[in-house]
Order: sequence, then C-alpha cells, then structure tokens
Amino acid sequence: MTNQAAAQRVSVIGLGAMGTALAKALLAGGHEVTVWNRTPARAEALVADGARVATSSAEALTAADLLIVCVLDDAAVREHLEPVAARLRGRTVVNLTTTTPEQARSSGRWARAAGVELIDGGIMAIPDMIGGPGAFVLYSGAGAAFARYRSVLELFGAAEFVGEDLGAAAMYDVSILGGMYAMFAAFHQGGAMVRTTGGTAARLAELMTPFLQAMATTLTAQAPGIDTPAEYVQPQSDEFTAAAIDLIDKSAAESGNPTELYGGLRRTLVGR
Amino acid sequence: MTNQAAAQRVSVIGLGAMGTALAKALLAGGHEVTVWNRTPARAEALVADGARVATSSAEALTAADLLIVCVLDDAAVREHLEPVAARLRGRTVVNLTTTTPEQARSSGRWARAAGVELIDGGIMAIPDMIGGPGAFVLYSGAGAAFARYRSVLELFGAAEFVGEDLGAAAMYDVSILGGMYAMFAAFHQGGAMVRTTGGTAARLAELMTPFLQAMATTLTAQAPGIDTPAEYVQPQSDEFTAAAIDLIDKSAAESGNPTELYGGLRRTLVGR
Repeated sequence: MTNQAAAQRVSVIGLGAMGTALAKALLAGGHEVTVWNRTPARAEALVADGARVATSSAEALTAADLLIVCVLDDAAVREHLEPVAARLRGRTVVNLTTTTPEQARSSGRWARAAGVELIDGGIMAIPDMIGGPGAFVLYSGAGAAFARYRSVLELFGAAEFVGEDLGAAAMYDVSILGGMYAMFAAFHQGGAMVRTTGGTAARLAELMTPFLQAMATTLTAQAPGIDTPAEYVQPQSDEFTAAAIDLIDKSAAESGNPTELYGGLRRTLVGR
Repeated sequence: MTNQAAAQRVSVIGLGAMGTALAKALLAGGHEVTVWNRTPARAEALVADGARVATSSAEALTAADLLIVCVLDDAAVREHLEPVAARLRGRTVVNLTTTTPEQARSSGRWARAAGVELIDGGIMAIPDMIGGPGAFVLYSGAGAAFARYRSVLELFGAAEFVGEDLGAAAMYDVSILGGMYAMFAAFHQGGAMVRTTGGTAARLAELMTPFLQAMATTLTAQAPGIDTPAEYVQPQSDEFTAAAIDLIDKSAAESGNPTELYGGLRRTLVGR
C-alpha cells in the first residue's frame, strides 16, 4: 500500500503485538512516529525502524497530532488519557483498544469536554495481517477527523467508517466476530457429530467451507428482514426454519451430542 | 453437465419441487425415467420431457434398476418401500428424503433383509440449483452401488460419498446446515445490535460477508482439534476465546439485546 499524504506526526501508545504492527505500518508509510510502551524494551525495538521513544505516555500523547491508542482495556485507556485530556485540545485520538460499545461512548464524554476529536476503532485482523490484503478496521465517532486522517489509517488496512456514534465500530466489530464464533461453534459441534458416523472433522471442513462461503453471500438479501421487516417477505417460512433446525437438534441428540447450540439458533431466528 | 454413461432405467418417487428437479435432470441426461407422485398432475407435467408415468408407487419402484425416492418424510419412505421390499431385490434405492441419521440407518434393516442396495443422500441445494454449479449431494451407505451409479447421480450436482454408515450423509447434511443457521442467527442478532448505534443490517452484511468467507477457510486448520485433540495446539487459548465471546455477550446485553446465542457459542467452544 502506498500513502500519498504528507508525513504526519503520529504517536502510538501501547506496543503489544497489535500496537507494534500499527507502529511499523506508520513508519513504513513515512510518518514521524513517537511510541510509548509500559515495558520500554518493546519501544526500543522500533528505533531501528525510525521511531522516536517517549519516556512517558503523557510525553507521547503531547508529541503528535494523531494519537493511536492500543492498550489492554478501557481502564488502561482512561489511565493514560484522562489525566492529560486538557493538554490534548485539537488533537485526534484513535482508540483501537478492544472495548464494548458503551465503554467507547463513555470515553466520548471527557473527549468532548477537552475538545479532543475521538474516533473509536475495531481491528478486523490479527497483527500479522496489518497493512496487508484482507485486513480492515472499523471506525466510528468524529467523521471530519476520520476524513482528514483516512489516508494514514489506510496504512493499517481498508478503513470502514460506520457512523458518528462512538459505539458503532465496537458494535459492528462484536457482531462480525459473533458470526465467526457462531460458524466455529457449529463446526466444532458438527465435527463431533460426524465422528459418530465414522466421519472426520477434516472431511466436514472440506464440504462445509465452500457451502458457508456461498451462503454468506445471502446476508445482504436477508438484511431487509432486519432493517425494514414490515416490507420484507421471507424466502423461507419460520415454520420451515424451525423444522429444519429441529431436525439438526434431533440428529445431535440421537448421536449423544449436546443440543444447546441449535436451540439457541432456533430461538434467535424464529423466536421460539 | 454431460453424462457419458449408457442410458439407465431410473424411477423417481415423489415429485415435489425437488423430486421434479431431479426427474428433469435425469431426463436431460438421456435416461429412461418413470415417475410417480401421490397427486398425478405433477407427474403428467413431466411427460412432455419424456417421462413415463406409473399409476402406483409399486409400479414405479419395480420399473427400474435405480430408484430415487424424494418424499415428505421417513414415514412416507416406509409406506412406499416396505410393502414391496421383497420385489426390489438387486435394485438400488437412493433415498433423498430428509431424515435424521437414525431414521436413515433404520431403513437399512429392511433393505438388507430384502437384498436391496440402499444409499441415503442429503441434497445441499435448493431445487433451482439442481444440475447447476454449486449444487452438491452427500451420499452414504452402499459404496459399490454408489460407484456404479455415480455418473447418473452427478447429473444432480457434485456427488460426495461420506461413508458406508447409512447415517453419515444425513449427519454431514445437518452439521453443514447447522453452520449455515449459526451464521444466519449471528447475523440477525448482530443486525439488531448495530441498529442500536444507528447502523443497518445492510451495512453489517457488506462487512460481514467477506470476513466470514475468509474465516471459513480456517475450518480445515481447526479440524485436528476435533479429530486428533491430543496432538493439537490451539492457536488461541480457551481463555482468549471465552473473553472474546464474553465481550460480545456484554455488548449485546448493554444494547438491550438477548445474549442466549453467545452463551451457547461459548459453552460449545470452551465448555463453560
């Protein structure tokens, strides 16, 4: 990925595997990067790539215009940012720490009071994928600041703005991950089930992967059922869906496997 | 799809939307097809395509060497086949009726007693897809008969044999459908969640579809965790997975959405 934008002063707070990958992407993009980490050794490792190391989080936060925060959790975000909030006026904070939507919104309160433009982000990639194809990051909050820094943020992966509500990025993030874990849970349950017939999870994966990839393309067609339910005609009746899931449930039970997963799917899809 | 095999005598019992699609695929493949349906009108519609119409299911079942059964449920399968079992010796029955694995196995008892080669199948397609790209059918049971009729069965879509256990095709079928419904349930849950932030299910679908397609490719790498767990090193600890799902759960609860789905995923994946 090439970045045509002028070099920006950017600080990265928190150098776990993800923060380190983000700092490297910014350095590779030609920006002036200041880094800080609670354990300094991880920061020193980036000096060879051109990073400047700050001796405190406050120093890093006041050294740049764009502040990327990727720390352990919401409590750590507050610990570093709230004490220096008054000195951050006019700067843009992009919080890539994993939080709930409500935690993300709650940070908006001190940010507004301090005149800080706050963007919350959800990274849909593992550290190794940062800057490569397939990585994308969800952003929400300060839309004007997002537009201003978009080309910098695109160094991490595709940048998807999902709304002005600071909680939106986290909510899209957890919703998408929920889909991934749902698929994984059904595969683990199904793998156990096919093994009772002498089959293998490996063979199941071979058959299930292309089927799920094809079925994933139907989500867009299903969206009006959630967005505008009054106008939506279901392609498959609730009775059909309930009967199909009951057959899965019965097959699990017959083979001595747990059925909790399928009951939850049925109640989520047809409410009973 | 072209079929190089010699024309076979094939009967199709049950002409719902799926049975009709199967009969049409066989006729298009150049086979001698006899059809029967409880309501004769559906059979008459296939005469123009070259089908011969039997006046009873028994007549259709004794008119061919390969018998395709696609009726309402397991009870209907027994109703048509058991009374004429003694007259079916040496023939091959491919039961494409939706049943549980245990029901499929149970049909094996009269089939063995009667000298009938029984194959159970699970169709992974809707009727419109039969014979086209993307359709596949799972088969299990009599392997030699499957090999003999494979080129005929491939007229319906890719033919995947999953084992000699008559229950295997149904078990793979429900396991794969379980993955589809899990994905759909998580999308419906997530769509409701993102709407609480001003987002839409349509935007969620746009972001979720390619992510799920990419994550579906990891199932093969996860399979040894189910097939050979003693030798498998998880890429992500149970603690990490449980914490990630708890964050999703908390985000659902905070936004006033049900959390049952996510609790079920967590217990399925990490057992607590």
